[in-house]
Amino acid sequence: MPKLVVRSFAISLDGYSAAPGQSQQAPFGRDGLRLMGWAFKTKVMGAMFGTGGGEEGIDNDFMAKANDHVGASIMGRHMFGPPPDAADPDAWTGWWGEEPPYHHPVFVLTHQEKPPLAMKGGTTFTFVTDGIESALQQAFAAAQGKDVRLAGGAATVRQYLKAGLIDELHLVQVPLLLGQGERIFEDLRGVEDLYECVEFTPSPAVTHLRIVKKAK
Amino acid sequence: MPKLVVRSFAISLDGYSAAPGQSQQAPFGRDGLRLMGWAFKTKVMGAMFGTGGGEEGIDNDFMAKANDHVGASIMGRHMFGPPPDAADPDAWTGWWGEEPPYHHPVFVLTHQEKPPLAMKGGTTFTFVTDGIESALQQAFAAAQGKDVRLAGGAATVRQYLKAGLIDELHLVQVPLLLGQGERIFEDLRGVEDLYECVEFTPSPAVTHLRIVKKAK
Repeated sequence: MPKLVVRSFAISLDGYSAAPGQSQQAPFGRDGLRLMGWAFKTKVMGAMFGTGGGEEGIDNDFMAKANDHVGASIMGRHMFGPPPDAADPDAWTGWWGEEPPYHHPVFVLTHQEKPPLAMKGGTTFTFVTDGIESALQQAFAAAQGKDVRLAGGAATVRQYLKAGLIDELHLVQVPLLLGQGERIFEDLRGVEDLYECVEFTPSPAVTHLRIVKKAK
Repeated sequence: MPKLVVRSFAISLDGYSAAPGQSQQAPFGRDGLRLMGWAFKTKVMGAMFGTGGGEEGIDNDFMAKANDHVGASIMGRHMFGPPPDAADPDAWTGWWGEEPPYHHPVFVLTHQEKPPLAMKGGTTFTFVTDGIESALQQAFAAAQGKDVRLAGGAATVRQYLKAGLIDELHLVQVPLLLGQGERIFEDLRGVEDLYECVEFTPSPAVTHLRIVKKAK
C-alpha cells in the first residue's frame, strides 16, 4: 500500500519548525534557516542547491533516501509562498526557481483557486482548495502506486497527523532554540495512542527520529 | 559564582515533561514515568532507588554528575506533592520516604505555609510562599557557596527560565510521544536571545543537551 510520509522534517529543541517573519529572504522565517544548517552541509543538498555542502555520513544518508519511492508531494500554502513581501504575488511560482527539485506532481493546499503550473524538470504545482483529504486522494492518484511525501510546513503536518493520515514521519531534532514559531506537536491529544517512535538515530549534528502508526 | 542549574531533566519528543493524571502511583502523571526509563536503567539510579538499573555509559555518567557541587535544591509544589489522591495531605512528607536522596536543604515553592520538615540523611524541606526569587536567595544562602539545583517540575523550570535566572540547563530528550502535559518551552519568546545550546551528546537511548546563558 502506498504511504503518506514525512521526511527530513526539522524541529528545534523547543519544538518549533518555522519561525515568524517569513519573507523573500527568509523562507523559514526569521532565524528559521538555521534549522536547516545540518541539511545544507550534506553532499546531497550541496549537489542539489549549491549550498556548499559536501559531507557524507548519517545526515547525508537520510537526505539521499528522502525521495525514495515518492511519486507526488503535498505542501501547505506558506511552504509554496508567496511571502508577504513578494513584489508580484500573482506571478509567484514557488521558492525553487524555474526547475524545482521535486520532478513530480506537487499539490499545494490553499484557499485561492489558481490554474496548475508546469515547471521545468517534471514538477507541476496543482492548487487544491477543498481540503487535506482531497489533496491526499489527488496525490495518491498522481503518484501511481508510489508513496506521497508531505513536504510541510508545520501546520500542514500537524493537520494530517491530527487526522491520523500520516503513515510515517521522519523528524530531525536540531539542538537550537527558536523561542517561538509554529509547532507540529500542539493540540494533538491522543497522538501518543496512534503513533510511536520506533527508531532513534543520532548523528554528530542532530537526532533522526522515525515515528510510525502503531499496529492495531 | 554559584549557579542555578537544572540537571537530567527529561522532555518527550513532543516537548512534555509531565503528563496529566498525577497520583500516588503516578508521580509523573499518566505515562509520565516512561520519560524516566533511561534513568532508571543506570547504575547510579539502581543503587539509589533499587530500580534494577545497572548500566554504565553516557546516561550513567550524566546521572553520576547531576549533584556535583550542588548545595541546595528548589522544587515546585507538584514535585513535592501531595498528589490529589493522598489519604492524609497534611501528613505528606514528599515522594521519597524517610530518607530522601537530596541530603541537603530543599526549598519547596508553595502557596501554603508549613513548618520545615527535617528528614533522615540531612534533607530538610523548607516551604517558601513568597515567590521564586525569594526561594533562590534562600537556597543560595543555604548552599554556602555551592550551586543550587532546580529539580522541577516543568512549570517551575519554565518560570525560572522566563525570568532568566537559570545559568545552566541539562535536558534529556527522550524519543517518545506523550501527547499532552506540561512543557518547559511554552510562552518563552526571547529565550533564544538569552540562551543557547552548547553541547549535544547522544547516548544509545536519549539525547543530552546542555543549554547555557549566552555571554553578554
